[in-house]
This record gives sequence, structure tokens and C-alpha cells, in this order.
Amino acid sequence: MKLVIGDKNYSSWSMRPWVLMKHFGIPFEEVAVQLGEPDTLASILKHSPSGKVPCLIMDNGASVWESVAILETLAEQFPDVPMWPRDAAARAHARSVSAEMHAGFAELRTNMWMNIHASFPGKGATPGALADVARVDALWSACLDQYGGPFLFGEFGIADAMYAPVVMRFNTWQPRLSEAAAAYARRLTNAPAVQAWIADAMHETHTIDYYETPA
Amino acid sequence: MKLVIGDKNYSSWSMRPWVLMKHFGIPFEEVAVQLGEPDTLASILKHSPSGKVPCLIMDNGASVWESVAILETLAEQFPDVPMWPRDAAARAHARSVSAEMHAGFAELRTNMWMNIHASFPGKGATPGALADVARVDALWSACLDQYGGPFLFGEFGIADAMYAPVVMRFNTWQPRLSEAAAAYARRLTNAPAVQAWIADAMHETHTIDYYETPA
Repeated sequence: MKLVIGDKNYSSWSMRPWVLMKHFGIPFEEVAVQLGEPDTLASILKHSPSGKVPCLIMDNGASVWESVAILETLAEQFPDVPMWPRDAAARAHARSVSAEMHAGFAELRTNMWMNIHASFPGKGATPGALADVARVDALWSACLDQYGGPFLFGEFGIADAMYAPVVMRFNTWQPRLSEAAAAYARRLTNAPAVQAWIADAMHETHTIDYYETPA
Repeated sequence: MKLVIGDKNYSSWSMRPWVLMKHFGIPFEEVAVQLGEPDTLASILKHSPSGKVPCLIMDNGASVWESVAILETLAEQFPDVPMWPRDAAARAHARSVSAEMHAGFAELRTNMWMNIHASFPGKGATPGALADVARVDALWSACLDQYGGPFLFGEFGIADAMYAPVVMRFNTWQPRLSEAAAAYARRLTNAPAVQAWIADAMHETHTIDYYETPA
């Protein structure tokens, strides 16, 4: 399989399938495209007919785009790998919080973008972004309380991969979190697959001006 | 099972699981909550711990929210019902376009909201909304061409349920569509489950002022 991704420093959507596949040791070829350049779309289209990243090109030639669709397809392809919780009710819950991340938190994403290199403490804290932070905190805290941690549904899985870029944002922008949420963010930051992504991001030198200047 | 939904005239997200379950004859109890009222959140919370609609309360007591999570959970609960395409590559494609609808098309959703009662031809046609319309048209046309219709992946399934509210928007705002996309929109409008939703919406009298005044 081939995974087409954007810059590791910036591409929050790309991070999700990458850390999941790394965590579970699923082999894939990585194709990196620099975002925000005049030839970005042309470069993506060479590999990904959707024109979007991330895009997974499967062994049967099918291309899958949108992070939740990629993750759901991987879970189906590898039924013995515990990407989703084994328990049906927990799995339904994990799908709900993953989909909520996929479609929601627009203010957080607009005001506290992912830039792993950067540190912008206290910036981007619009009322809308802080409301999104509070919802993420409540959602994480409920999962950690219900399933006992260390990750959202026990062991690391798809829901954690969906929220890993949010943890990167929190590391950069440092909004205030509850103790339980802050501890989860530290655990997720320290997960080996997440550390591998961060290390790669720190080696990148390509920058996108817009994302280097906090509002 | 119990499905908590908003007004049928306005709640595009609620329409998706409702038409899918109706189409496939999956029995459920319907709980309707009027949106946009001072007690809306309290009413939702009585039935749906997430505070969101749609929310599916499963027989095991688990609640599932976010339309794609509900649809994916239903597909898993009823493996013999062809909600997703049988072919793995087509299924990956259907998941991609469903997820793209779930997270995308923000300009279309902001400027051409769902209001089944209303007719606002030519309004809401901002450049961003028209770009979203063009992407929806291209995406539909590619599916219809590749799989031969009459629905996106052959027979009616989850991807069609995801786009049914978009068809309602197109009926109200009437952006220009390609012939193939317009014909698909007519077929989806005429699908019995969609007709049943429309008929219920036409009987509703509750209105939300904001959605009655096109920009």
C-alpha cells in the first residue's frame, strides 16, 4: 500500500492514518507532497486521483481518501488488528468521537492550526476555539473515565489516531486543559508512533508563511 | 432502537440515518426534537446523552452520534443488508465520498441550507458555494459513470443517504447541474424513503426564522 501525505509539520489530516499504520506495524510506502506550493495539486494528482491528502492507494489499486474512510477501510482489511475496541458499544462510542473530530471543531482548526515546530502559547484563544477545546477536554475525560485509559478506549486505536493532531495543536498553543486531559495529551505525545511523526516533522525545513504567524 | 432527530424540514444530518433505515426496513422508534428553541438542548439531552442529533440509541443502550458513525454502526449490525457496496474497492470509494460529505462542503452548507418547504432559486450562489456544487457534481458524475447508476454505487446505499440532504438543498436553491447530476438528484428525490421524509417535512409547521430568509 502507498500513503500519500502532506508536510508532517502541518498536515494534521495526514498524521492520522500514518500514526495508526506505524503503531500497528502495517507496512506502507510513503509519498510526501509539500503543501501550499504552486505545484502541490499537480504533485498530489500524480499519486492520488482524488487530489486530496491523505490518500491510501490499496494493493487492489483502489484509492481511499478522507482520514475516517482510510481508517475504517484499514480496520476492515486487518480484522485481527485491534484498531477499534472489541466491545460493540465501545466501538460505537469510538466511531462517534472519531466522526465528531472528523467533521467538527472548526474554530479550533482555524485558530489553532498544526505547526509542530512552533510554540504559540496563549495565542489563537478565540471564544469559539476555547469552546472547542472545552468539548475536546470533556469528550476525552469521559472516555478516560469510562474505559480507564491509558488511551481513549484502553489501548491505542483509531480514536487516538484521530485526536493525535489535536494534541500537537495543544502542545503548540497550550490552551488550559483539565488534569486528566493534559495527562492523556502527554501520553499520546509520547506514544512511539507519534514520536516518530514528530521526529520526521522536526527534520522538515519547508515552511508555509501563513502558518508561521499566529493571529 | 431509537433515533433522535431534529425537524425534518431543516435537519440535514438527521435525514441521513432516517432515510437509510426506512429504505432497508430497519425498525426504529423516532424521537423528534424541534431545533432552534430555548429548550432544544434540554430536550435532546433527555434522549441523547451526546446532546447532538442525530443520535441512535441502540438496543444495548449504547448511543451513537454523528451520521457516518451511525451509518457505519448500522452496516456492522446488519451485515446481510447491502448498505455498503459488496465489492471492496467500491466500498472504499463509497466510504471516501461519504466521509468527504461528512466533513466537507462548508460553503455549500452555510449558504444553501436545507429547508424543504422553501424555494430560493438563484440565491446563496456565492463563489465558494458554487465551487462546492461543482465538486459534488463531479463526484456524483464519476460514480454514476463508473458504477452505471441508478444510484451512486448501483443500488441505493449509505453514500446516497449521505447526499440526500444535498439533493434537498439543490431542489430549494436550484444551482445549475450537469445532466447526469440533475438526473441523479431527481431519482434520489423520488426514492420512496426520501419521499417519506419529504412528506413528513411538508406536514411540519415549526419554523426557524434564520432559515427562512436567504442572503
